[in-house]
Amino acid sequence: MNEKAVAYVLRLGDDALVAAQRMAALATWAPQLEEDVALANIALDLLGQARALLTYAGELEGQGRDEDLLAYRRDEHEFTSALLVEQPDTDFAATMVKLLFFSAYQRLLYEELSAGDDETLAAIAAKSVKEVAYHLSHACAWTVRLGDGTEESKRRMQTAVDELWPYTHELFASDSVWRGYGFDPAGLRERWLGIVEPVLAEATLERPVDDWAPTGGRDGLHTEHFGYLVGEMQSLHRAHEGVSW
Amino acid sequence: MNEKAVAYVLRLGDDALVAAQRMAALATWAPQLEEDVALANIALDLLGQARALLTYAGELEGQGRDEDLLAYRRDEHEFTSALLVEQPDTDFAATMVKLLFFSAYQRLLYEELSAGDDETLAAIAAKSVKEVAYHLSHACAWTVRLGDGTEESKRRMQTAVDELWPYTHELFASDSVWRGYGFDPAGLRERWLGIVEPVLAEATLERPVDDWAPTGGRDGLHTEHFGYLVGEMQSLHRAHEGVSW
Repeated sequence: MNEKAVAYVLRLGDDALVAAQRMAALATWAPQLEEDVALANIALDLLGQARALLTYAGELEGQGRDEDLLAYRRDEHEFTSALLVEQPDTDFAATMVKLLFFSAYQRLLYEELSAGDDETLAAIAAKSVKEVAYHLSHACAWTVRLGDGTEESKRRMQTAVDELWPYTHELFASDSVWRGYGFDPAGLRERWLGIVEPVLAEATLERPVDDWAPTGGRDGLHTEHFGYLVGEMQSLHRAHEGVSW
Repeated sequence: MNEKAVAYVLRLGDDALVAAQRMAALATWAPQLEEDVALANIALDLLGQARALLTYAGELEGQGRDEDLLAYRRDEHEFTSALLVEQPDTDFAATMVKLLFFSAYQRLLYEELSAGDDETLAAIAAKSVKEVAYHLSHACAWTVRLGDGTEESKRRMQTAVDELWPYTHELFASDSVWRGYGFDPAGLRERWLGIVEPVLAEATLERPVDDWAPTGGRDGLHTEHFGYLVGEMQSLHRAHEGVSW
């Protein structure tokens, strides 16, 4: 077992899995049927990334756990996804701001990993970076449209930006898992700001100040929303496993 | 306005829309990640059919209602979808049996419509028939696997078949809307049985007797489940329309 590699691949897979769950639960509640389709496709992309990453994490672990066991049989505290992706979609503004912050991060991260030494991971990242580039451009377009829209849409977008901003710091926190990969995500933060700040400016939204920076997701310490998400995701699988469906 | 055509196109669109909502709500609660992906793709196909059909219904109506107004601004009693598609997904067995019954019907119906006089409708049907053929084969495979599976999976499948069977009669009920199209769906019933009965037999499931045959969906009289479905589908749109999002 390559413990270091398990840890960072699992982390990437959990990020994608949790983001996919959130996005899929939303598809069909979008304000337009066309946007339903877009959100469902984004959820499918993220689910595909999660499957590839969790499968690979299971192989690295070498204990016979496949994507399904990793998705459906772990306890809530074993998921190492970032706090950002588990935040609830209180309205469409929150969904789009979360997608903006997360896909900008994924684009930079996958770009980095696609040039890395781990060939399997590099291949997954190279495929995924094209997908997240689309997600990012979709989120940018909605952010500008709603931020620079009506008074009410601007208010909702600014609320979402203010509420989600604190959770973005964790994405760039250095820790032993990333050091195990020989990588410091702190280096991505400036480039991330270089993507996000101009979008907020064009959307006439204020870039929040950096103060509160909650962490814990990477260590399995999640916010209260996460228990419900995992419970729903796993309920059917757990109900059926006893009967060997 | 071509009232007759509005009625049957709307009916087809509503069937696809409601089936898509049910399916999308389920994606990510499937027993396997691979099946999550399959269900999400089926939901996307159905949503695509719904969009094309509702757009066309709006054009035929000629009163400026587009797909979104038809999906999000009608009252529950204005939807003419069949009772079958609104039935709840109480477990994965119910989902698959519903998909088996509905996609076998859609395949025959779309085949019929693709050879019809209404060229726009024929084009939508011709594209959709390929999609539903895949849905049908997916549902057949799961029906056989679970029906001829463990004692518990067989019990669940038989329960689903028994509970959903009564709602299939409505699909073949003749009425003024279908007569307006010059078509009698009653003629499809034998061919539908020719698809479904062998699958049930291979799955070692009993084909229920034909007795109770509830109707009403085509006239906007829905079961209690439908109100919740429409409420959820429309909540975001209604919350935002006042603010011109």
